[in-house]
Amino acid sequence: MPQVSKRGQDMAASPIRKLVPLANGARARGLKVYGLNIGQPDLPSPPEAFEALKKIEPGVLAYSPSEGIKPLRDKMAEYYHRFGIDVTPEDIIVTTGGSEALLLLFEAALDPGDEIIMPEPAYANYMGFAHMAGAKIVTVKSNIENGFALPPVEEFEKLITPRTKAILICNPNNPTGYLYSREELEQLRDIVKKHDLYLFADEVYREYCYTEEPYFSALQLKGVEDRVVVVDSVSKRYSECGIRIGAIVTRDEKLRQAIMKFAQARLSPPLLGQLVALASIDTTAEYMKESYDEYLARRNFMIEGINKIPGCFTPMPKGAFYTVVRLPVEDAEDFVKWCLTDFEKDGATVFMAPAAGFYSTPGAGKDEVRVAYVLKKEDLAKALEVLEAALAAYPGKKKA
Amino acid sequence: MPQVSKRGQDMAASPIRKLVPLANGARARGLKVYGLNIGQPDLPSPPEAFEALKKIEPGVLAYSPSEGIKPLRDKMAEYYHRFGIDVTPEDIIVTTGGSEALLLLFEAALDPGDEIIMPEPAYANYMGFAHMAGAKIVTVKSNIENGFALPPVEEFEKLITPRTKAILICNPNNPTGYLYSREELEQLRDIVKKHDLYLFADEVYREYCYTEEPYFSALQLKGVEDRVVVVDSVSKRYSECGIRIGAIVTRDEKLRQAIMKFAQARLSPPLLGQLVALASIDTTAEYMKESYDEYLARRNFMIEGINKIPGCFTPMPKGAFYTVVRLPVEDAEDFVKWCLTDFEKDGATVFMAPAAGFYSTPGAGKDEVRVAYVLKKEDLAKALEVLEAALAAYPGKKKA
Repeated sequence: MPQVSKRGQDMAASPIRKLVPLANGARARGLKVYGLNIGQPDLPSPPEAFEALKKIEPGVLAYSPSEGIKPLRDKMAEYYHRFGIDVTPEDIIVTTGGSEALLLLFEAALDPGDEIIMPEPAYANYMGFAHMAGAKIVTVKSNIENGFALPPVEEFEKLITPRTKAILICNPNNPTGYLYSREELEQLRDIVKKHDLYLFADEVYREYCYTEEPYFSALQLKGVEDRVVVVDSVSKRYSECGIRIGAIVTRDEKLRQAIMKFAQARLSPPLLGQLVALASIDTTAEYMKESYDEYLARRNFMIEGINKIPGCFTPMPKGAFYTVVRLPVEDAEDFVKWCLTDFEKDGATVFMAPAAGFYSTPGAGKDEVRVAYVLKKEDLAKALEVLEAALAAYPGKKKA
Repeated sequence: MPQVSKRGQDMAASPIRKLVPLANGARARGLKVYGLNIGQPDLPSPPEAFEALKKIEPGVLAYSPSEGIKPLRDKMAEYYHRFGIDVTPEDIIVTTGGSEALLLLFEAALDPGDEIIMPEPAYANYMGFAHMAGAKIVTVKSNIENGFALPPVEEFEKLITPRTKAILICNPNNPTGYLYSREELEQLRDIVKKHDLYLFADEVYREYCYTEEPYFSALQLKGVEDRVVVVDSVSKRYSECGIRIGAIVTRDEKLRQAIMKFAQARLSPPLLGQLVALASIDTTAEYMKESYDEYLARRNFMIEGINKIPGCFTPMPKGAFYTVVRLPVEDAEDFVKWCLTDFEKDGATVFMAPAAGFYSTPGAGKDEVRVAYVLKKEDLAKALEVLEAALAAYPGKKKA
């Protein structure tokens, strides 16, 4: 039989999705599984989304332009202007989720053997898409002790080689919830300028920053206007992960032209999702505020609750809806599996993402999990109870 | 400034889409442009599609499983059974159009430097996706003179090297409309078996075969059950190109597991499109028959009309809704551009896809275009009039 590619063999399974069959097994046994593993918000998508679907007239569900429909690109530009981000519709390429944005960007910017530097822990699928493009991810370790702050700039500079093409950040961060300060971004700006690199910024959690300051986008950095590329998505901000609508935003026309060749090969982003996204950007300030307030309340509740569990520690994240938790166990993946296969409390268990998959450094994050606070507060409360009981019962506790 | 990747520089622009800006320019000048360039059917999507959209209840537009929602995979298996294709829902991975099916398949099956052999002319985006995966397309030239029949098997065998991983066919064929006979498929089966290769078959035009015989799928070949991979899409058969729903169908579990790792990285195929596709597979036999009859009538009309134009020749295709036409010009791409920029007849012009982009052999297809008969008959009639007049007026006619 022909063999699958080496690339296919070497591709790491998604740390977020690979244990899903175990969770399904637990559900099949009748257990309630509190799903903290994936960034799938439970909040309803805005009503405008469903009104847009009702309005679709019978006709031809045709290909859209490869760069996305013009009304959506216009509306997205308007949306960025609200944040003081000065881009035109021409700077925007609509993609099939932030996922495809990353893949198209990596294909257009990176050759096999090229390197990207990014802080870790990091969204695991960055590694996956880099692997697909044959590029190499080089990481600078950030640490739970100081809340996963940006490592010193010298750590980045030490890793720059002739093959380095870009620095990649996620801001606010998935999986840590860390929000980069303007000063930190300016330090990165100075490096990319000095070493002639791209700065890729995944800003899909922009709406969820729990500070009083306005969000500062990489696209607002002065002096690197044309080497910044923002990856975006409507998934998280309108609870529309399923529609698969994202975007690449960059003023670098050469890069956009290269991306467009790949975008044309895949013909077009999903039409229905584009119509829904277009309507959703016009949702009310109330909808956005309710979502924001809900996540803020959940964050406060969740961080406090986690830190009360004996042996658990998590820093206070300033953005997104994730936090990385250090558990009093030897092997967090084993613990997560055990929760799904060998444990229950009052007919329920909990599902988290083992954090080791978010690190490249061998052994890093072995006692950590990522927790997404995407459930109602009462469910989060129950999840915390289950977690505490599970940790008390688990045989693989950390040796003192 | 950092440079785009060599892969980005070397990526060929889509022959179908790269001249779209010229067509838009012609439209902006007030011209009616008869679009024969792209396989975008003008037939309405089935009513079931729009009913499904109306039924979507407010809630969370959440991620779907990476392999696609179960009801759709069940329904797709049922659909294949109608064709006598014996597959289970577990053999099916739902993708974001046939485009993503190709990309995920190539990533999972091919390493950089691996080779696929396929007949040319071929769907240009195969080259694009192979280029993204770093794989090499090797082609066997088929010829307009004998209606683009499968070249002799020896031509394929001559090209097999230790790096050959697969043979790829599109059946019925885009861009030629050629329908492979069962005997031809069995010859390919024998080669893939003998040389331990995969057989990839793009069967998205399955519903449009203009012969009396039932369709014969590569998945029905005996003795290669687990090395056949079918790429499919609902785009063409339900006029739903915009929803971006396709599939990879294979009984090779190892390959599916490798594909799933890439599929998990991109999280999920579009949810709304899946709901529409699910409903559309249940559309009426009348809808399918009307579409079929319409394409059949258009084919007959179009082929006859083209062959009446002095100097034009096209064979009679037995499937899909394309045909490759030899024009009495030196350079078909120049002619297509000229039609969009320098010609009009009664306020109209015509847009076709230059066929050179469907060949890898340098110089091949230079005097050919691909024509998609995806317009109403009265529009096809006008398009033919415009084409005839354009050819008469064009300064770059073929030298005798």
